[in-house]
Amino acid sequence: MKFIIFGAGAIGSLFGALLSTKNDVLLVGRKEHIEAIEREGLKIEGITKGIFHPKTKWDGSRYDVVILTTKAYDTKKALEEILHKFGKIPVLSLQNGLKNEEMITEIIGEEYAIGGITSHGATFLRAGKILHAGTGETVIGELNGRITERIEEIEEAFNTCGIDTRISTDIKKEIWKKAVVNVVINGLTSLLRCKNGELLKSRHAEETMEKICTECIEIARAEGIGIGEEIIDKTKEVAKNTAENISSMLQDIMKGKKTEVEEINGEIVRIAKKHGINACINEFLFKMIKAMENVRHLG
Amino acid sequence: MKFIIFGAGAIGSLFGALLSTKNDVLLVGRKEHIEAIEREGLKIEGITKGIFHPKTKWDGSRYDVVILTTKAYDTKKALEEILHKFGKIPVLSLQNGLKNEEMITEIIGEEYAIGGITSHGATFLRAGKILHAGTGETVIGELNGRITERIEEIEEAFNTCGIDTRISTDIKKEIWKKAVVNVVINGLTSLLRCKNGELLKSRHAEETMEKICTECIEIARAEGIGIGEEIIDKTKEVAKNTAENISSMLQDIMKGKKTEVEEINGEIVRIAKKHGINACINEFLFKMIKAMENVRHLG
Repeated sequence: MKFIIFGAGAIGSLFGALLSTKNDVLLVGRKEHIEAIEREGLKIEGITKGIFHPKTKWDGSRYDVVILTTKAYDTKKALEEILHKFGKIPVLSLQNGLKNEEMITEIIGEEYAIGGITSHGATFLRAGKILHAGTGETVIGELNGRITERIEEIEEAFNTCGIDTRISTDIKKEIWKKAVVNVVINGLTSLLRCKNGELLKSRHAEETMEKICTECIEIARAEGIGIGEEIIDKTKEVAKNTAENISSMLQDIMKGKKTEVEEINGEIVRIAKKHGINACINEFLFKMIKAMENVRHLG
Repeated sequence: MKFIIFGAGAIGSLFGALLSTKNDVLLVGRKEHIEAIEREGLKIEGITKGIFHPKTKWDGSRYDVVILTTKAYDTKKALEEILHKFGKIPVLSLQNGLKNEEMITEIIGEEYAIGGITSHGATFLRAGKILHAGTGETVIGELNGRITERIEEIEEAFNTCGIDTRISTDIKKEIWKKAVVNVVINGLTSLLRCKNGELLKSRHAEETMEKICTECIEIARAEGIGIGEEIIDKTKEVAKNTAENISSMLQDIMKGKKTEVEEINGEIVRIAKKHGINACINEFLFKMIKAMENVRHLG
């Protein structure tokens, strides 16, 4: 297949590298990163090791799918660029947040939107060099739940290249489940400035994880998404399995970079408000992370 | 008058020093601190400057009042020691927290309990040496609101020694007002690891201050304490006036010492529960500070 990776940061570059072994892959990303790849190839370390050679210049030909891997706060701008440059083309979002598919629908068109999540963990080491830090399942699906030819083709292309992937007939629910895990783990580790596994070392942190999940379940249900209490165990399991990881949000805070807190924690709060749900803990968590962006902290 | 300072930390030593110029003052505190005072006198720097010579050994004579200045988590133990050593004697608490007067009543007796708060700020620099960092009003009062002879005598003794003091006929309300300010400022600065004034630099932090105050007003009212919305402005004013201060709770966290979070934030949560009030933000704030005690944070 022919894939465009749009937003070749850590995750995008990892997928691009893996897919490039058996597919035509065009990477679109920051100038410095793309130039390093053109000079020395795309270096992957960690779980996957090697130097990969995806394309970095568009030859004008038609591609099958755009895999969108920008930060969620850049989705709108990215989609406008995609539409402008490549025209109407299927877009598979593998991003954080709850609004990416809605934005693809709005900007490119409903039939072009494909949902996805991935549990792979990757870190951007420097221009041209990515660490493949964690492995896990990738789930993709059509928003209407149908098993289409294109979704099967993408699944096969992914699996053939070593990206363990399954199709979901309820991808919105999968996206929500990942979002809830992110709300809790990114949110609390940012506030407590700790690695993911530390959340399980404090009874009070664990109780708070449960309470945030419980609020999220109510918010999801109001939105028509049937998530149950199993999300509590799922969240704890992710914290346990990624115990030594520093969440992406905390990494951004520590680097003084913009976080996805608006698209992760903020979005849950907005959806709760829309439905008149009192999401007290999520609101406080969101506001505290926003406050962290403005106050000088003492270390 | 004859004062015993029980728990001569920063605030206790400051009061002991000031009162010792015109009163018989006996300091009871940690061995190292007392020994340093016996060797070189009690050194005060900052707003008050000088070397003071309170007594450090009890001659067995009867004292008029114990000024209790231990950390709030040590109140019970302190009162048992006071009762054992000095017998039934009036005790004026100048501590943080909401339960000190109740404990004096329980352990020494109702007629011996005197309430108080102070806005002085002091820092323990080293054994024998205290920094007088901030100045402000001291308020004392009988729990039943009466203007008694002893409360007037204490007020006069304090004022004569330069401790700006007034008598309140509703000292419980004054204690609650200080507790709410502490709940907000100690709590939020600990969570955000910032100086007091930083809370006013983030719209989200300021909104959260307001919400915590609003919960506290409801909790206070359920307890029969008539605090109104003026506490919101009061809290912001304190944050502004102490902008460069590091709150005592955050100081304790940064030194790895036990905090008064149970007696400040925890107590508000327990009182809310007792009255069936949903104190969601206070509960979350309390749990996050408790969690901070157990998780390794990354700086």
